[in-house]
Amino acid sequence: MECFFISGSPFAWRAMLALKYKGLDCKMTEIHGSKGDNKTPEYLAMNPHGKVPVLKDGEITIYESLAILAYLDRKYPDVPLFGLTPEEAALIWQRTMEFETIMPAIILGMVRPIFTGAVDGNEATINERITEFRQEFDRYEAWLERSDFLAGDSLSAVDFTLYPVAAISSRVFGSYSNDKLNFDFFPLADSYPRITAWMARVEEMPGFDAVYPPHWKIQKAAE
Amino acid sequence: MECFFISGSPFAWRAMLALKYKGLDCKMTEIHGSKGDNKTPEYLAMNPHGKVPVLKDGEITIYESLAILAYLDRKYPDVPLFGLTPEEAALIWQRTMEFETIMPAIILGMVRPIFTGAVDGNEATINERITEFRQEFDRYEAWLERSDFLAGDSLSAVDFTLYPVAAISSRVFGSYSNDKLNFDFFPLADSYPRITAWMARVEEMPGFDAVYPPHWKIQKAAE
Repeated sequence: MECFFISGSPFAWRAMLALKYKGLDCKMTEIHGSKGDNKTPEYLAMNPHGKVPVLKDGEITIYESLAILAYLDRKYPDVPLFGLTPEEAALIWQRTMEFETIMPAIILGMVRPIFTGAVDGNEATINERITEFRQEFDRYEAWLERSDFLAGDSLSAVDFTLYPVAAISSRVFGSYSNDKLNFDFFPLADSYPRITAWMARVEEMPGFDAVYPPHWKIQKAAE
Repeated sequence: MECFFISGSPFAWRAMLALKYKGLDCKMTEIHGSKGDNKTPEYLAMNPHGKVPVLKDGEITIYESLAILAYLDRKYPDVPLFGLTPEEAALIWQRTMEFETIMPAIILGMVRPIFTGAVDGNEATINERITEFRQEFDRYEAWLERSDFLAGDSLSAVDFTLYPVAAISSRVFGSYSNDKLNFDFFPLADSYPRITAWMARVEEMPGFDAVYPPHWKIQKAAE
């Protein structure tokens, strides 16, 4: 098996975490958007959208991270990502799709102006997205009142979907300073103690370090 | 089982088609957004987002249409929505998620200005969305060169995901006239013959008529 990823992509990271959690042997191949690796004819033949992750497993090539998770759970059902029963699957899929339907647009609305230097004059709109972000995180915090992980007492697809976004948000927004933006709830440890403890539990998973974004490791070592 | 829907919601329609395809006995309960039925405390207790569909099955209540499909396939595996093998599941999930990731934003960018009377002055942006819409439909047309349905020779979750959007698009954009918008590829029968033939095949499915949007039936009868 081979999984293509870009360092720090939350979508690739979720697939890599799922592969490690299942204990599957998979070559992790880093590609670089800045070098155009994801726009070569060879890559576009695997994924016409030029996105990560892509998983190759023997004859089959799959893109879309949640499709990869669904495939892995059918092909390698030991250590389930989507629960043991239909009822567990319902809750895990519901929370995964709820995240996928709501969160990417919110985060894009927060990240894009910061990365493109378009914050000035757009503070009110960005703060609306920040309020929505907090509403969602409030819900996750409430879920964790009842269980150790986001949909029960085992890791599941929901945890692998949310974890990368929580980690990336902490990194990007936690180190960003702007008096007009309501980022005062970072660090998450102060405002979301259960989410913070949950992140630490995810990080204890065997194989976690092996799929940690390589460029974060390099920056960490340089600090 | 009970499924709550709003007439003409593509998300509810996909769940209703899947329920009929599986031959499951389910009460279909129409609610009305205009009357606020989806914002009552009772409804918000079932789905905090106030959206359709919601499925109740005994003790369990599920929202998010794709979570409902995934649940139904685990609980009632006869007549599969996600294929018989992991490889079939991979393609079906990939195409379903590809649709879900790309299409709703495109369609919203086309539908919203028309419904809110905000077309004037925004023609260029709307035409960009129309171009993207066509690119996706071109891909679906190509898929149908190789099989009768969107991911093989049986109906699957992909067909139930795309069909309502194709039907609604035909209805909304096919009857909308504006010289500055590139809607000249409607009716779909002229430009997408395979998609048109596929739509007719979906419509032959037992139970199709029973979940046809009620307000479309009324309008049809009045014409």
